[in-house]
Amino acid sequence: MSVTGLPFDDFRTLLRELPGPDVRALAAARERDAQLTKPPGALGRLEEIALWLAAWTGRAPAVTRPLVAIFAGNHGVTRHGITPFPPEVTKQMVANFSAGGAAINQICITHDLGLKVFDLALDYPTGDITCEPALTERDCAATMAFGMEAIAGGTDLLCIGEMGIGNTTIAAAINYALYGGTAAEWVGPGTGSHGELLEKKIRAVETAVAFHRDHLSDPLEVLRRLGGREIAAMAGAILAARMQKVPVLIDGYVATAAASILKAANPSALDHCLIGHVSAEPGHLQAVEKLGKTPLLALGMRLGEGTGAALAAGIVKAAAACHSGMATFESAGVSNKG
Amino acid sequence: MSVTGLPFDDFRTLLRELPGPDVRALAAARERDAQLTKPPGALGRLEEIALWLAAWTGRAPAVTRPLVAIFAGNHGVTRHGITPFPPEVTKQMVANFSAGGAAINQICITHDLGLKVFDLALDYPTGDITCEPALTERDCAATMAFGMEAIAGGTDLLCIGEMGIGNTTIAAAINYALYGGTAAEWVGPGTGSHGELLEKKIRAVETAVAFHRDHLSDPLEVLRRLGGREIAAMAGAILAARMQKVPVLIDGYVATAAASILKAANPSALDHCLIGHVSAEPGHLQAVEKLGKTPLLALGMRLGEGTGAALAAGIVKAAAACHSGMATFESAGVSNKG
Repeated sequence: MSVTGLPFDDFRTLLRELPGPDVRALAAARERDAQLTKPPGALGRLEEIALWLAAWTGRAPAVTRPLVAIFAGNHGVTRHGITPFPPEVTKQMVANFSAGGAAINQICITHDLGLKVFDLALDYPTGDITCEPALTERDCAATMAFGMEAIAGGTDLLCIGEMGIGNTTIAAAINYALYGGTAAEWVGPGTGSHGELLEKKIRAVETAVAFHRDHLSDPLEVLRRLGGREIAAMAGAILAARMQKVPVLIDGYVATAAASILKAANPSALDHCLIGHVSAEPGHLQAVEKLGKTPLLALGMRLGEGTGAALAAGIVKAAAACHSGMATFESAGVSNKG
Repeated sequence: MSVTGLPFDDFRTLLRELPGPDVRALAAARERDAQLTKPPGALGRLEEIALWLAAWTGRAPAVTRPLVAIFAGNHGVTRHGITPFPPEVTKQMVANFSAGGAAINQICITHDLGLKVFDLALDYPTGDITCEPALTERDCAATMAFGMEAIAGGTDLLCIGEMGIGNTTIAAAINYALYGGTAAEWVGPGTGSHGELLEKKIRAVETAVAFHRDHLSDPLEVLRRLGGREIAAMAGAILAARMQKVPVLIDGYVATAAASILKAANPSALDHCLIGHVSAEPGHLQAVEKLGKTPLLALGMRLGEGTGAALAAGIVKAAAACHSGMATFESAGVSNKG
């Protein structure tokens, strides 16, 4: 994979030819799970997670190099005054990530997760989606390819997060384009847009989707026209993870919108992904349900930065540890009911 | 506190004189939270957890010595053939905890939690609650006092768990005695009691509560007559934690029943406790709702051993780390909307 980018059409091809689960590793994990010193099923979703790790890594469940990748972008749509924080905050928060001062830094320390931050041309916001495409085809493809590089250093669990003032508006536009309903259903307060700001946000989403409406049957066009660089990069990263047998934890409302693009292009595209948490952003639960997923956590968070995915990584690590480290009934000399 | 035990009545006194939250530490934590580099409220329950830690430790939120305490007991009621595993498994699992082969060992390693296991006279099961009290007053008080010793080595977050073949029957009997309804509402499969086993379990709970019905208006009598040693010890540990300013994470169905005894004796007795997870055991959600609590996790687990509380400790650690380690808007040079 090269940072210089694949042509847009190559992504269409990639999306048609996704590798499936490793049924052999899955069967081996299932067999071991049945022998562990616990009543069958007593670890609930931890057992499902262990099997999911096996299926999508092709190995015995293990998480030894978990990585949080944060993608940051800026958005032309912020010119409509839709958010209480100025766009400069995107760059300031990237600096805060580098300095170790953000919530995600603390969660990474707590759960021993690697952290990489990718800032994407922050001085060059994307086009204003209410009246132009966010990205050219070339820029969109190059950014997806850049996102694919997130896992180039090696990882066995990728947590996808983002930072970008204005990007809950972008995510709402993508969801509205993909799923319909009303703009208001998909627009929420984000970092704190209430009252007039919220009304402006809803109008921006309505205007954007109306402007691009003749081009939204193709999910990659939805991405290019209504998305942003961090959205395109997250989509690329999720795709690269699939190709490289890396399971993915998706964060909140914005990361889920990026994932939804892939799912719209191929219904199996997110089988290697779990949703880390359900955000307090009102549209997130509905977006997650569209993906047929059940989030691991529900803690009322709405920060982004990958914080929900990183917290969930603590659960996934524990699931892998239980599967690999527990004794069997036989080895521990514990009576099984059989 | 002495292992030889307080008289039963001293516990009644203790329960009337519980210390309250530290309002100064709480106010200081609230003030700091407002300055951290995130939109207000964006960390959801993590913020509430940080404030809760401050209120009940009397210090800035921190988790540096988290401890999982597992209490193990055996139960005379198992003679009624209510569980698929024989009572010997209690002792075998205690050995498995010591050898590091159980799920809780792996979760403790993952989240860097201390682990202590207290086995409580496993060769001397409690009385058969269908026809006699589980414990004498002296034995019950001594076991509560023993449970208080759980925190004697020092901890700043106590996770309460248990092991005991037959103890979901015990927990169901306690809930039925405290809350009424029908026995069937409170009885679930536990380690895997279905069909005839489940019917026997329901009948045992009905018989037990009917037998003791004239003595169940006093919560400590509910504990003594229908409980078990691990239940009494958990109640003691939760109480000692309150006296010593140690916040508590309560595990699943059985640990919650122990906590419920204290709440019945004093409505504020569990203010220093959070429920780690909601168990798949059907009565747990209802029991948790009776306590007015919202569990941190819902992962379909039903193993006990403190596994749900220990997983939740990973969340609590992250909450403390975010509160203490994040930069402020001022220190990070991030624009606040104010």
